[in-house]
Amino acid sequence: MSGRGGAGGRGGPAGPPAKVSNLDGEAPDSTDFANYFCTYAYLYHQKDMLEDHKRTGAYYNACMQNRAQFAGKVVLDVGTGSGILAIFAAKAGARKVYAVEATDMAKFAKRLVTAQGLDGTVEVIQGVIESVDIPEKVDIIISEWMGYFLLRESMLDSVLVARDKFLKPGGALYPSHARMFMAPIRSNQCRQRHCDFQNSMEGWAEFLDEMKQYYGVTMDCLSDDYRQEQLDYFSKTAAWTDVHPSQVVGSAACFKAYDLHTVTLEELKAPLKASFQMRVLEDGPVDAFCGWFDTQFKGSEQNPTTTEVTLSTAPDPTGATHWGQQSFFLHPPVECAEGDVLSCDIEVVRRKDNQRLMDVLVRHRVEGRAGSDRTSAFHIE
Amino acid sequence: MSGRGGAGGRGGPAGPPAKVSNLDGEAPDSTDFANYFCTYAYLYHQKDMLEDHKRTGAYYNACMQNRAQFAGKVVLDVGTGSGILAIFAAKAGARKVYAVEATDMAKFAKRLVTAQGLDGTVEVIQGVIESVDIPEKVDIIISEWMGYFLLRESMLDSVLVARDKFLKPGGALYPSHARMFMAPIRSNQCRQRHCDFQNSMEGWAEFLDEMKQYYGVTMDCLSDDYRQEQLDYFSKTAAWTDVHPSQVVGSAACFKAYDLHTVTLEELKAPLKASFQMRVLEDGPVDAFCGWFDTQFKGSEQNPTTTEVTLSTAPDPTGATHWGQQSFFLHPPVECAEGDVLSCDIEVVRRKDNQRLMDVLVRHRVEGRAGSDRTSAFHIE
Repeated sequence: MSGRGGAGGRGGPAGPPAKVSNLDGEAPDSTDFANYFCTYAYLYHQKDMLEDHKRTGAYYNACMQNRAQFAGKVVLDVGTGSGILAIFAAKAGARKVYAVEATDMAKFAKRLVTAQGLDGTVEVIQGVIESVDIPEKVDIIISEWMGYFLLRESMLDSVLVARDKFLKPGGALYPSHARMFMAPIRSNQCRQRHCDFQNSMEGWAEFLDEMKQYYGVTMDCLSDDYRQEQLDYFSKTAAWTDVHPSQVVGSAACFKAYDLHTVTLEELKAPLKASFQMRVLEDGPVDAFCGWFDTQFKGSEQNPTTTEVTLSTAPDPTGATHWGQQSFFLHPPVECAEGDVLSCDIEVVRRKDNQRLMDVLVRHRVEGRAGSDRTSAFHIE
Repeated sequence: MSGRGGAGGRGGPAGPPAKVSNLDGEAPDSTDFANYFCTYAYLYHQKDMLEDHKRTGAYYNACMQNRAQFAGKVVLDVGTGSGILAIFAAKAGARKVYAVEATDMAKFAKRLVTAQGLDGTVEVIQGVIESVDIPEKVDIIISEWMGYFLLRESMLDSVLVARDKFLKPGGALYPSHARMFMAPIRSNQCRQRHCDFQNSMEGWAEFLDEMKQYYGVTMDCLSDDYRQEQLDYFSKTAAWTDVHPSQVVGSAACFKAYDLHTVTLEELKAPLKASFQMRVLEDGPVDAFCGWFDTQFKGSEQNPTTTEVTLSTAPDPTGATHWGQQSFFLHPPVECAEGDVLSCDIEVVRRKDNQRLMDVLVRHRVEGRAGSDRTSAFHIE
């Protein structure tokens, strides 16, 4: 056996498939723990996130530029990891910070808290938020729960569970709002992926010849399925990209905005459906739809921030955050002219076999162009 | 969040950690299914294994050069995947072949069987061997169960379960024997890994400076653990290597031989302990111990093969099988002179958190050289 990568999960083009997981606002099961939480138990990964200074800096500013909101308050950090956000909250003047972490990273968080002399303020609790006991209601919940394309990982579920259980009326979520965007882009990766796909199919043809010649086994009956499997990989898998703003060839559409104080777990778990338009600003092909998000720190209505902070993962000439952007390549690209309007209906659905991953369906057409109506299906791994 | 790769499992240096799994000769649980079996549900991976012609050719020869042993016999293929070994067995003259496959690859196997016109002979059964029902005892069990360093994946467990349940007295296993080898090698990768480790620690030092400067957070208290985590990754993780025979600087030792007809599940699950010696044939550093295996098709005592076939994964100038060799790098390398004898005690233990992965402990010394006694710990991911 030993499909290269085997149990280790470093797959070839076909890639490691979805892991089974089920989130229902309940404590995660052992599969989810093995597949999801474990990633965050490594200092290496924590470092990777911490040194994304657009990310860490935004949270730092959200705390330190809003000391008035933190002064004397009780704060809950959901998924504290290294403990950094809890430490920021304490530095901003919180009276008490509960820092909840499911993985063994909790012990490092504890040590880091001690090293900052914040033992008296920050209490690290190892456990999942769905089952830990916090002895009091809190004024602020801070959490860095965002995944690729905002929703991957479905960690916001846990934050909402915490909100509904532990946040005082009028209390504030940090961040308080999140938005999702899409824009048309130009990208050589699109053509590259098409070439890779063709090479893969040529490889398959050679393989069929060999199997026939060496062992007298005809495998043509599997060609359609192999083609489908490879097509699925090369054209349907969304890609982590660091898109330069010059690649963006049209207006960005904000197709979804969440007020995190009011969104319900039910809404979050239901398919996200939205319609939006993007105006093309250059003649030429649209190779992909590029998706990203931002989150805003505005506090709650009753306890607004003094200084509003935004963490954006939009295409940026100085380089992407560790989230990058998720690009959805169009095969073939959509030929457009300046002024064309791309109308899209998007549907984002959690995968049945793994609630932390997602399927994305985009129906798109060029306004006024007959026959331009297409539906492209993607998945976010 | 979104540690790059997150739930997708494509980790950075620290790599995706162990997956929870528990094999007890019972049907695998959903975690094991999600993490292990799923890999084999892709045609891409099947192609990868099939086009390893040393592998596929060895099984082909084992069947076709032993037609007398297959003629009119009942055969069981454990983990048939694409169905190839079942097809070989049928082509070699088997009267009936039961081809058991846990994953959805079973439907492709069925189609492939039909395409060869072997529907009357090969019956594909989807299920795990621990719980499927085979309506009769079989004369031969054929299976390709080998993982990296022979034992990774622990799939032999399932073959032994099948043997004890379904093999007639005197029936034969294909392959019938397996051996494990170790040899001292020279490798630049050893130095490369050491450099990578040092670079990683320099990166950590810069990271500490930034965290202090940007956020006033001191993280020195985690340096020892980060160092340990990186050391663990760079020096303890065995590497897939395609070693050229010229890199082998000493005699290879066969440190373990399995007669698959008699080995018990209990023996297999217990730690493998062995002592062996390797004679160094060149002056210079020994950078790593290189491990590989072979399997032999000798049939059973009562039903020996006419032609003995061996599938070897030893260093080969024409390139490695898809298993490659597993190299265990020594930090620092052991300086040796021609004629030196390396004495080793090896222990291979299944990982507690994932029975399909393994820890390897090697105590080694240069005979007659005081102070050369060292213990090196590794894991096979």
